[in-house]
Amino acid sequence: MSGRIPVELIRAKRDGHALTPDEVRGFIAGVTDGSLPDYQIAAMLMAVFFRGLDDTELSAWADAMVRSGDVLDLSAIPRAKVDKHSTGGVGDKISIPLAPAVAACGVAVPMVSGRGLGHTGGTLDKLESIPGFRVDLPVDRFAAQVAELGTCLIGQTARIAPADKRLYALRDVTGTVESIPLIASSIMSKKLAEGIDGLVLDCKVGRGAFMKDRERARALCAAIRAIGVAAGKRVTCVLTEMDEPIGRTIGNALEIAESIDVLRGGGPTDTRELTVVLGGEMLLLGGVVDTPEDGRARIAQALADGSALEVFRRVVAAQGGDPAVCDRPDEVLPRAAHTVALGVEPGWVVGIDAEALGMAALILGAGRRTTDDVIDPAAGIVLECRYGDHLADRDAAVATVHHNLAPDDPRLDEALRRIRAAIHVADAPPTLRLVTRILEILR
Amino acid sequence: MSGRIPVELIRAKRDGHALTPDEVRGFIAGVTDGSLPDYQIAAMLMAVFFRGLDDTELSAWADAMVRSGDVLDLSAIPRAKVDKHSTGGVGDKISIPLAPAVAACGVAVPMVSGRGLGHTGGTLDKLESIPGFRVDLPVDRFAAQVAELGTCLIGQTARIAPADKRLYALRDVTGTVESIPLIASSIMSKKLAEGIDGLVLDCKVGRGAFMKDRERARALCAAIRAIGVAAGKRVTCVLTEMDEPIGRTIGNALEIAESIDVLRGGGPTDTRELTVVLGGEMLLLGGVVDTPEDGRARIAQALADGSALEVFRRVVAAQGGDPAVCDRPDEVLPRAAHTVALGVEPGWVVGIDAEALGMAALILGAGRRTTDDVIDPAAGIVLECRYGDHLADRDAAVATVHHNLAPDDPRLDEALRRIRAAIHVADAPPTLRLVTRILEILR
Repeated sequence: MSGRIPVELIRAKRDGHALTPDEVRGFIAGVTDGSLPDYQIAAMLMAVFFRGLDDTELSAWADAMVRSGDVLDLSAIPRAKVDKHSTGGVGDKISIPLAPAVAACGVAVPMVSGRGLGHTGGTLDKLESIPGFRVDLPVDRFAAQVAELGTCLIGQTARIAPADKRLYALRDVTGTVESIPLIASSIMSKKLAEGIDGLVLDCKVGRGAFMKDRERARALCAAIRAIGVAAGKRVTCVLTEMDEPIGRTIGNALEIAESIDVLRGGGPTDTRELTVVLGGEMLLLGGVVDTPEDGRARIAQALADGSALEVFRRVVAAQGGDPAVCDRPDEVLPRAAHTVALGVEPGWVVGIDAEALGMAALILGAGRRTTDDVIDPAAGIVLECRYGDHLADRDAAVATVHHNLAPDDPRLDEALRRIRAAIHVADAPPTLRLVTRILEILR
Repeated sequence: MSGRIPVELIRAKRDGHALTPDEVRGFIAGVTDGSLPDYQIAAMLMAVFFRGLDDTELSAWADAMVRSGDVLDLSAIPRAKVDKHSTGGVGDKISIPLAPAVAACGVAVPMVSGRGLGHTGGTLDKLESIPGFRVDLPVDRFAAQVAELGTCLIGQTARIAPADKRLYALRDVTGTVESIPLIASSIMSKKLAEGIDGLVLDCKVGRGAFMKDRERARALCAAIRAIGVAAGKRVTCVLTEMDEPIGRTIGNALEIAESIDVLRGGGPTDTRELTVVLGGEMLLLGGVVDTPEDGRARIAQALADGSALEVFRRVVAAQGGDPAVCDRPDEVLPRAAHTVALGVEPGWVVGIDAEALGMAALILGAGRRTTDDVIDPAAGIVLECRYGDHLADRDAAVATVHHNLAPDDPRLDEALRRIRAAIHVADAPPTLRLVTRILEILR
């Protein structure tokens, strides 16, 4: 009983002193069991925002959050279990081709995903645009499917990291979302509860990402790695560019269609590249290849030879969806009642603003402003141009807008206005042509 | 309705951006009317702890706190109205001789005081040790007494600065007490509600004070002044030394007796000095003298000629107390059942730890750990030595302890142990002999 009381812990953190692992665990226990009032948690979160957490505090914090709820036990599955987490991007559908491709190469992918909020989409919403697809499977079915098919994609249950739920809700209303240790422990509290052996973090960097600059992205990667290493997990962090949307599509059913293109061996270059590179790192962590180059080759092969698509087909069927989506996506996936081809002045495409397009897609119905919003799975944007393209014709189509809004709905005009403004056209070509979205790999 | 929502205000402050006066007023309005939840206030307080408030924000913050409750209107009183506020010290009874002395010199002193908490005492507790003395007068009687006698000493009503009450309670449990702008706005929200023209701040500096170093004390003075000037008030700040207790006595009735000694023209040198210097500054602010030296001379004269004592006698009678306390304090004031003379080894007194003695007095019953504790008005400590004294005899008495505890009460031993440890004796005299407690005057 000689321990410090909560206000003393807040003051210690405020003044830049480290808390002991026991003190951190006691604090998170108070978050979980409700004995700590919101105002003391809020003050601690703001103190952590300013003072950070050292590696010892950070791993204790994340570990306590993991232990606040259930931890899946997948030890009965003999294969290595590796997951990927993305910090969130516009058009980021990579999990959908990635999980089946990695599973097809012999590494299990127990993937617990989130929903979209704000300008970035969520894997669960995308999957639910496949008619019948269920993401709310019970834990035993999740484990059985990972064992049988190599992967399963579900949503977070109420029993995974409940401390994170309370902290996240408070961070959202107290201006403490943008804290590296709080972001890292939130991510890892959910990932470590999955019973994984390793994790590849896809850390987005750029104007359309949560992390606007590479220095902060590296700091997040360091925090994620510190937590993972302390928990005995292997962690690889990949910094990827997020100034422009990923691939051609933004919107749930549209992104599923693009994902199936990739699973069929096609798809946009950057969507393929991210799938192959992230998948290669997962195979390396899972120990089925010795070099990342071998890993990439194996993923590329699985996309080319149909084995990745075959895993996806079985996953869709096992999770209640219509497997015909793999063969006839245009028929199976919901389609918007209206499409609008958008043109701009002739010239060179010198920028495509991912965040602005994400917001436009949200306005069309593809995303949520608040967690209560209902999504239109068919709504979205298909880009008909890429960075560096030359638009020769006046009013050449640069994007096709898919929507179910009435012609006089003010949201339609607002979305079209934002999309036009998001595609930057100049008289001269951009000096630098992006050839890869991979900025850095931190193994 | 284009205003920023609370979480945006928290984020702006967190990131070091200034809030507009309207935003500050809106935030404090939400504190007052209860529409802001505790957790958002807690997060804002911690952000203010780290980022501070600029002068514009600070004056808007304090002004909004003042306006959250009643502001006394003393404009019908033709005399200048000047108050003194002390940041709190051990043995600090200065208000008691000061208010009547200043009133005797023609400046009105409408004094709303606080209760003691922790190792520092409160003026209200000291006054209440005079049998019958009431500090809970209604506002109209307060104003009438200030008009008639020149001074009245009461406690804060529930209707003065209610926003401060909520903020103070939250600061106490969220580790955000030690913030210069929050301390300054808390003090000034109550003082500006008194309807004063000017304020002298007695800012204690030292081991026994809230402000441990002079730099922080100056920062507090600057914040107090900024708020006062923005409100059209004259403010003088006096930095005074608070390593050792003020005067000879610590404890409520004991301090009243010392105060009456000062009002009779006697008393310890430092208690007198503080009364004369602070009083001189109040007369200067009140415009009845042209120089601080003239002000000091006037106060010294009022103490010497009995006019200050006469005002105090009338104040005691008007507030329900027994005015005979002025003539026979030993008979009228409560006396402890037991006294203990404490001796230490012979040598030179090289330090008297004010904070430790304040805590010892609290343990004897003179103070409160929590606002619910009941005080023993008779309990306390009389110092029989001063800094620099030579104690020639073995076991020469250095302090007399007054208490009503049973001989076997463990609190008694604990208090005696702390008092002995608080009086530092060495083989050689201290090199520096304090001759004044006045460190700096910022007019």
